[in-house]
Amino acid sequence: MDAVDGALVLVGFMGAGKTSGVRSLAAQLDCQPLDSDHELERELGESVESFFDREGEVAFREREEAAVLELLDREDSAVIALGGGALESERVREALRRHVVVHLEVDPEDAWRRASGKGRPLARDPGRFRELYEQRHPLYDSIADAVLPPSDRGGPLRALPALAALRDAPAGTRMVWAHTRSRDYPVFFGRGLIASGFLFPSEGRRFTVTDETVAGIHGAGDAAIKPGETAKNLVSAEWVLRKMAEAGMGHDDVVIAMGGGVVGDLGGFCAAVYQRGIRHVQVPTTLVAQVDSAYGGKTGVDLPEGKNYVGSYHQPSAVLVDPSALETLPREELAAGYAEVVKTALIAGGPLWARVRDGRDPDDEIILGCLRTKLAVVAEDERDSGRRQVLNLGHTVAHAIEAATGFARYRHGEAVGIGLLAALRLSGRDAIRKEVAGLFAERGLPLSFGGASPAEVVELVGRDKKRRGGDVPFVLVQAPGEVTYGHQVDPADLLAAVEEVHAG
Amino acid sequence: MDAVDGALVLVGFMGAGKTSGVRSLAAQLDCQPLDSDHELERELGESVESFFDREGEVAFREREEAAVLELLDREDSAVIALGGGALESERVREALRRHVVVHLEVDPEDAWRRASGKGRPLARDPGRFRELYEQRHPLYDSIADAVLPPSDRGGPLRALPALAALRDAPAGTRMVWAHTRSRDYPVFFGRGLIASGFLFPSEGRRFTVTDETVAGIHGAGDAAIKPGETAKNLVSAEWVLRKMAEAGMGHDDVVIAMGGGVVGDLGGFCAAVYQRGIRHVQVPTTLVAQVDSAYGGKTGVDLPEGKNYVGSYHQPSAVLVDPSALETLPREELAAGYAEVVKTALIAGGPLWARVRDGRDPDDEIILGCLRTKLAVVAEDERDSGRRQVLNLGHTVAHAIEAATGFARYRHGEAVGIGLLAALRLSGRDAIRKEVAGLFAERGLPLSFGGASPAEVVELVGRDKKRRGGDVPFVLVQAPGEVTYGHQVDPADLLAAVEEVHAG
Repeated sequence: MDAVDGALVLVGFMGAGKTSGVRSLAAQLDCQPLDSDHELERELGESVESFFDREGEVAFREREEAAVLELLDREDSAVIALGGGALESERVREALRRHVVVHLEVDPEDAWRRASGKGRPLARDPGRFRELYEQRHPLYDSIADAVLPPSDRGGPLRALPALAALRDAPAGTRMVWAHTRSRDYPVFFGRGLIASGFLFPSEGRRFTVTDETVAGIHGAGDAAIKPGETAKNLVSAEWVLRKMAEAGMGHDDVVIAMGGGVVGDLGGFCAAVYQRGIRHVQVPTTLVAQVDSAYGGKTGVDLPEGKNYVGSYHQPSAVLVDPSALETLPREELAAGYAEVVKTALIAGGPLWARVRDGRDPDDEIILGCLRTKLAVVAEDERDSGRRQVLNLGHTVAHAIEAATGFARYRHGEAVGIGLLAALRLSGRDAIRKEVAGLFAERGLPLSFGGASPAEVVELVGRDKKRRGGDVPFVLVQAPGEVTYGHQVDPADLLAAVEEVHAG
Repeated sequence: MDAVDGALVLVGFMGAGKTSGVRSLAAQLDCQPLDSDHELERELGESVESFFDREGEVAFREREEAAVLELLDREDSAVIALGGGALESERVREALRRHVVVHLEVDPEDAWRRASGKGRPLARDPGRFRELYEQRHPLYDSIADAVLPPSDRGGPLRALPALAALRDAPAGTRMVWAHTRSRDYPVFFGRGLIASGFLFPSEGRRFTVTDETVAGIHGAGDAAIKPGETAKNLVSAEWVLRKMAEAGMGHDDVVIAMGGGVVGDLGGFCAAVYQRGIRHVQVPTTLVAQVDSAYGGKTGVDLPEGKNYVGSYHQPSAVLVDPSALETLPREELAAGYAEVVKTALIAGGPLWARVRDGRDPDDEIILGCLRTKLAVVAEDERDSGRRQVLNLGHTVAHAIEAATGFARYRHGEAVGIGLLAALRLSGRDAIRKEVAGLFAERGLPLSFGGASPAEVVELVGRDKKRRGGDVPFVLVQAPGEVTYGHQVDPADLLAAVEEVHAG
């Protein structure tokens, strides 16, 4: 870590753990932890609280800005904690451009619990505190090169290798840290990542699994399967696994799964079972994969009897998201991914849903919003026993449609779009259903399916692998941002909802 | 839980956690926890320590015996903790026969730490304490229906369903509790278990994977693969997985893997990856499987490029060991299993090695000793990153011999025998090597291999999946009970050791 390359600057709301974060990072990097509040107090010759109370916020911000600018200019500062309000200054934000800015996220409830009752000027009134939180959170995000979601105190230290690697990534690359019970990993997000040759983790031999289409664009890789869902089977997996064995891959090596959902699921599965598990990195090149399937560690292949019937939970060691890869994507494939975008935005609600319902094409902000939504859900429930089930919104019917049509007639994302419409009917949310159908229609997404009867699809829903104890639980939408799981659905209602999306 | 069926009686050395154990079990069973020391003190009208110190051990044991016999006769006692010394009485041991006796194991160091310094008459001198431990440990074991190895305080409670199930097992069935980081499970050991139809866990649909030979003896099962290592591949796995899907197996259901090591590995693997993992029960019917391969959660299939190259860690929910199944085993198959017995006895040392080097055929005590050795090693290190590697004693060369001869010429156990001889040569333990070779020769086990050259075998050793960072670590024997891992071996020494076991 070299100060010339800019320091690691931790920003975040009160109570996010910036002070303990810089201490653990500085201990690891063998350097001095710096804290703008402490430096400021040294200069003021009194506590932040007493100066603030006597001189007021404007005078305080002036002194704070000067102290922070000086701190960011020092050559000896490799790790700096920045006071919660310093980012309001335009000049500070400008000075931060040559540093690696890390947003330590904190839940507003935790922040209040930690920061209140200590005499802090801005943590005295819970209403004002919450307002400030809502105002600053997007500010931190907008300037951050890296975001670490709320976590234990060890979070920043575990993320350090990935933070350091950011310096080798193309300018503008951002990193979002992903938590799950079994493994933490970084998601790198940047235009030009693939062409730059950036890779994380950097040690170990690589074996790249891809498909023939992706190979034609981004390079051949070590094993290129046929494109499409029909290649997602145990025969392809065995072919890849044998090539890995021939290449002499071992426990220190890394599988790169570069492609769409099929390549990601298959490549991840091969990594999960090769020699009982080696590391893998997901490099999603389709919209579906970038917003959904590359995260969360679900890997697997299909059986003729059902989609994803064979698989493992195996978290990636990193995900590299290069949105410029979408530029070469066929229009139908982009459209298919769009269904997952809408699904994720419905789960997230808030600004993401607002941006999506606008009708605009998925841009960097939407993709980032979707992936952060997915990561937050998986962080709560890695193994699908609870909250994670909301991600199956629209998927129960979608899987059945795919199985009933031999996994060949519809792209996964197309089936999800149809399934989402059925789920919105089952939810009794007809206004949203209409709005969503409008968004789909604009992109040429199918609003109904053919090639199988509604009865066949309903029969296959009954065989869904999410079934526990005989019943198939459904995910339903109350409102954008309010999506819940585990609902029992009347068979007649289900048939009606499926008939409504049947073209026949 | 019904007192008429006999109580759960916890025995074990001082400091094993009997008191907290009966409390948690009684809370769960909604009954009164009874403790023989407390009952005794109530009758004595003073503390055990003061009575013991005044009246001496003989008088104390007399009163203790009377109190314990009364306690074991009460109808209201569903959970009882028995004082450490009560088992020395023949009459108490007799009275225990109608109860379920549970041995809570404790490491001698932990026992001393917990019991000393509290005025206990027998925990004042560390030397005498250790002697008493060595004397009583086999006594507890000899009377116990169930053994719970040292664990956290939650151990007895987690084991309760399995302890309760013991009442439904054939008379004489014993249970050993297995710990790993990812899952605890019971090992039931009893003659006639298979024929009795006993099963644990008892809920959920079952799907039995077996092979054609075992099916001919114990019943057809739901999927019977071809017998032998050549069937342990992804094609067989897919065939089984599809049958599971056709049968509508779901997350609440259980795969039963009934057979030898191949069926156990393949059936376990199918359970591990079916719908990303459902439960499975191992029912080992060969000696190799009963002493080694059924425990520890390593599942998988072979690739042409290497044995067990595709797999998962997936602990069973239970292992049912019926040694009477060995009666139908062909002589060569028993002999092949014998190599794993010798390997395990070398790792264990002590009484198990003494019993095995005697030359006797594996009896119940030897099989139990082997499985407990294996469970103890796996408890320390589920994922093969450390101590568990000692279980690979002899396996590095064995796997290479199997691969070099196409997995068809030698049984796994036969290859392990040859590999063990090579490992003992590499260890420089020629006296043990001679003794082991003698044991093998008596049973007609091959002492050398053909069908491949030593150079081919050494080349395949280099491709071993245990390789980390380019080198293949070896497990070596210093003495019985002293087996260590991670040794680098000179290539010339390896070639010499392999040439010595080559028939050519």
